[in-house]
Amino acid sequence: MSKNLTSRAEDYSKWYNELVVKADMAENSAVRGCMVIKPYGYAIWEKMQAELDRMFKETGHQNAYFPLFVPKSLFEAEEKNAEGFAKECAVVTHYRLQNDPDNTGKLRVDPEARLEEELVVRPTSEAIIWNTYRGWIQSYRDLPILINQWANVVRWEMRTRLFLRTAEFLWQEGHTAHATKEEALAETIQMNQIYAKFAENFMAIPVIEGMKTESERFAGAVETYCIEALMQDGKALQAGTSHFLGQNFAKAFDVKFTNSEGKLDYVWATSWGVSTRLMGALIMTHSDDKGLVLPPNLAPIQVVIVPIYKTEEQLEAVSEKAQSIMEQLRKIGVSCKYDDRTTHRPGAKFAQYELQGVPLRIAIGPKDLENGTVELARRDTLSKQSVAMDDLVEVVDGLMTEIQESLFNKALDFRNTHITEVDTFDEFKDVLENKTGFISAHWDGTPETEQQIKELTKATIRCIPLDREEEEGVCVYSGKPSKGRVLFAKAY
Amino acid sequence: MSKNLTSRAEDYSKWYNELVVKADMAENSAVRGCMVIKPYGYAIWEKMQAELDRMFKETGHQNAYFPLFVPKSLFEAEEKNAEGFAKECAVVTHYRLQNDPDNTGKLRVDPEARLEEELVVRPTSEAIIWNTYRGWIQSYRDLPILINQWANVVRWEMRTRLFLRTAEFLWQEGHTAHATKEEALAETIQMNQIYAKFAENFMAIPVIEGMKTESERFAGAVETYCIEALMQDGKALQAGTSHFLGQNFAKAFDVKFTNSEGKLDYVWATSWGVSTRLMGALIMTHSDDKGLVLPPNLAPIQVVIVPIYKTEEQLEAVSEKAQSIMEQLRKIGVSCKYDDRTTHRPGAKFAQYELQGVPLRIAIGPKDLENGTVELARRDTLSKQSVAMDDLVEVVDGLMTEIQESLFNKALDFRNTHITEVDTFDEFKDVLENKTGFISAHWDGTPETEQQIKELTKATIRCIPLDREEEEGVCVYSGKPSKGRVLFAKAY
Repeated sequence: MSKNLTSRAEDYSKWYNELVVKADMAENSAVRGCMVIKPYGYAIWEKMQAELDRMFKETGHQNAYFPLFVPKSLFEAEEKNAEGFAKECAVVTHYRLQNDPDNTGKLRVDPEARLEEELVVRPTSEAIIWNTYRGWIQSYRDLPILINQWANVVRWEMRTRLFLRTAEFLWQEGHTAHATKEEALAETIQMNQIYAKFAENFMAIPVIEGMKTESERFAGAVETYCIEALMQDGKALQAGTSHFLGQNFAKAFDVKFTNSEGKLDYVWATSWGVSTRLMGALIMTHSDDKGLVLPPNLAPIQVVIVPIYKTEEQLEAVSEKAQSIMEQLRKIGVSCKYDDRTTHRPGAKFAQYELQGVPLRIAIGPKDLENGTVELARRDTLSKQSVAMDDLVEVVDGLMTEIQESLFNKALDFRNTHITEVDTFDEFKDVLENKTGFISAHWDGTPETEQQIKELTKATIRCIPLDREEEEGVCVYSGKPSKGRVLFAKAY
Repeated sequence: MSKNLTSRAEDYSKWYNELVVKADMAENSAVRGCMVIKPYGYAIWEKMQAELDRMFKETGHQNAYFPLFVPKSLFEAEEKNAEGFAKECAVVTHYRLQNDPDNTGKLRVDPEARLEEELVVRPTSEAIIWNTYRGWIQSYRDLPILINQWANVVRWEMRTRLFLRTAEFLWQEGHTAHATKEEALAETIQMNQIYAKFAENFMAIPVIEGMKTESERFAGAVETYCIEALMQDGKALQAGTSHFLGQNFAKAFDVKFTNSEGKLDYVWATSWGVSTRLMGALIMTHSDDKGLVLPPNLAPIQVVIVPIYKTEEQLEAVSEKAQSIMEQLRKIGVSCKYDDRTTHRPGAKFAQYELQGVPLRIAIGPKDLENGTVELARRDTLSKQSVAMDDLVEVVDGLMTEIQESLFNKALDFRNTHITEVDTFDEFKDVLENKTGFISAHWDGTPETEQQIKELTKATIRCIPLDREEEEGVCVYSGKPSKGRVLFAKAY
C-alpha cells in the first residue's frame, strides 16, 4: 500500500491527504466539509481525550453539557464574538419535513414549520453558556465555576481539509467564571500551560507558548494565549488556544455577583479549547514517506506481532510463542496485536503497519524459535535488531520511552533549526521562501504593518512568545521602533 | 433543601422535575426542549458511558464518528425511516448570518447564503452511515463492521421533559454490517442482552427483554428488541433498543458485497442505542421523597465525610482522622469527599447529600474520636450505625456491594409484584387504574386491536417478552385466538 503514497518532497499537501485516508484515519463524507473519523483515527483521538480529561480533572475542572443550538438573539449578544462567527454559521430555520407534493417519495421542508427564532449551530459555546451561568451565579461563594465540555461544533469554512479545517469538528471547550481578573488570568495561563505539557509530553510535539496579536485574537477575547507548533513543511500550526475574556461575556449576558465586600460586579471569564485539529498536527509532525509515525503514548496498537511461516506446524509453534509474548507485554501495560491473517503475506502486513504507524513490530519465524530470538523493528527509525526472547519485555518497555523521547527530540531539533532571526525585510522574504519555518523579527506593534506583511508574504504573526526577551530594535518592515521580536510564519 | 421537594404521593411528575433540578443534575435551557446537563448529572452519565464503552469494546466494537448533518436526499433514501423521523427534524437551510440592515447591532440570516440542499440535523445516523459503508464494503472479507458512535442527536419533540424526552439528547448508536442474516440477528440479540446486563448489574434496574410489535418498531427496522423497565409510579420506560434492520438500508444505499461463493448480495444490518434517557430511568427507579438514591456503581461520590465540631481544635482533630479514612477508602477504590465547609451546618450538609443520593455518609465528632468510632448512614435505607474505626474500611467495602444488590432487589420486588395477569378487559382497565404496572394479557396479534386498546386506555404493548411461554388463549379485547401473553403498560 505504501508504494502508492506520494512523497513529501513531491507534494506535501497531497502526501498528507493520502496518508490520512490510506492509514484509515478519516475520509470526506457526503456532507460538504464534514469528515468521517474512522475507527483507527478515532482510537487516537480517544487517547488524546483521556489524557486531556485527566489533566483537566486534576486541576479541578468538571465536565458538563450545553445545547448544540444557540438562539440568534443570544448569539448576537456579545457583538465582537457574533461578528467573528456570523459569516460561517449553520442556521436551523425549520423543524419539520413533509412529503413533497410535486415529487412522490421525496421530502421537502414544511413551510409551516418555520422557527420563530432561528437557531445557530454552535461554532463555540460562550453565548449559550454565559446565558446559563447567569442563573448559577449570585455571590462570590458560587465562584469559581470550572467547567469543560466535550462536543461537536460547526463553522462553515469554505476551504476544508481532513482534521485541519472541517465544517464540523470535535473539540473540548473549557468555560470558567471567576471573581477576580487575577484569578481568571491565572486560569487562562494555566490552561495554556496544560496544553503545552500535553503537546510536548504526550504528543511529542514541541510548542511555543505565546500570545496572539489583536488581529489574531479570538472574537470577544481580551487576550488570547496559544501554543504554536511547526510542521515538517515549515508551516506553523496553532495547536491550542486559551482566552482571557475579561468581563465581555458577563456584560453581554448580565452576569453579576456580590463580591466578598458586598458589592455587585461583573464576573470574569476564560475559555480554552483544543480540537481534532491536533490529529493533523500529530500526523504532520512525525510521519514520513512510508506513512504515519505515532508516539507510543498515542498508538492504539503499540506492538504488532507478525508470524513468518511456511507450514501449519510452524504457524502453530510461532502462534504459541506470540501468545506468551502478548501476555507478558500486556502485563506491563503495552497494547499488542497478533496478526495471523492467512490472507496476507508478511510483506503486506509490514507495509500496512508502517503505514499505520505502529511503533514496534515483532516478527517471529521458525529460525527465531530455534535461536530463542525475535526480530524487532522500530517504526520511527526503521531500524531492525535481533532480540533474545528473554530480554524482549525489558527491551520493549525501554523502547516505549525511548521512541517517545526520540520523536520529541527530533521534532524539537527541526523546530529549533527553523526559527530564524532576521533584521531586514529582504532576509524575511528570503527565509520564508527558501528556508521556511518561524521568523523571529521586530515588529512595530501596529495592525497595519502586520496586515501589510501578510498581504506581501502570506506570513502572519503566530505569537508573541511568552519567554521573549525585551530588546530594543526596529520593525523589519516599517523601520519604526520595537521592543521585542515576534514570531512570523506561514500557517495552517 | 429537601424540605422543599414535593413528595411522590403528592405529585410524582412534579417530584421528578424538582428532583432533577434540586439535585443539580440538569435544567432547562434557553433553547426550547434542550437541556443543560450539569456537572453532577454529567458525572453520572460519564460512569454509564465508561461501563457501556468497556462492554462494547469487549465484544469487538470500535468507536468512530460520522457527520452531524444528513443531506435531505440521503435522509429520504430509506422511506420508512424517513417517514418515521420527518416530522421532528431540525433543518439547516442557510450557512451565514449578516448584519440586519433594519436593525442596528442585530443579525439576520443572509438570504444569499441558502444551501443548495437542506441538511437535516441527525435524529439517528443510519442514513449517513450506510451511505458511508457503501465505500467500505466490497467483499465478505470486509465484514463484519462493528462500529459504535457516541454523539448528540436532535428530535423536535413537542412535549419535553428533562432526560426523558428532550429535543437534543446524548446517546450511543451502534451500526453494524454483516454477511448473513443469522449473524446480524445474533448481533441484535447480543446487544440487547448487553443492555439488559448493564441495566441490571450496573444500574440496579431490573428489565424485561422483549420484542416490539410492528407498530412500536424503529422506523426502518425488520425487528426491534428492547429492554423495558418499570418506574415507581407504575409506568414503563423503554430503556434501550436493538434493531435488526434486515437489508433495508443496504438496499436503500446500494451496499452490496461479494459473498464467499463469489455472488453479489446486499449487506445485513443492525443498529442499537441507549441515551441520556437512562438518567431518567435511574432517578425514577431508586429515588425517594428525600431525593436521589444512587447505586454505588453510578455515584460520583460514594462516601461523604461530614465533620461535627464546635471548636477549631475539634475540627482539626476530626480532619486529621477524615484524611486518614479517605486515604484508606481510596486505596480500595471507593471515591470519597470530605466536606469541611465552614459556611454550612452539618444538618444542611446531611440534607444536601441525601438530596444528591450519596450512598454512604460518615459523620465524625469529638465523641467518636474518644470512642474510636464513626457514625455511618446509608442513603438507601436511611439507617444509621456506629462503626468502630478499625472496622470501617471493611464495612464500607461490604456495603458498596450490599447497597448495590439491595437496590436491585427492592426494584425487582416492586417490578415483580407489578406484573399482573388479566384475562378480561374489565380486569385490564381495573389494574391499569388502581394497581398500575405491567399487564400480562393475551392479544390477537393485530395492530387494530393494539390501537383500540391504546385509544381506550393509553396503554401500549411494551413488548413480547423473550421468555414468554406458548399458551393458547383468547385476546383480552377482541376475544380472538392468541398464542401467548404480551406486556401492556402506560409508558414514558
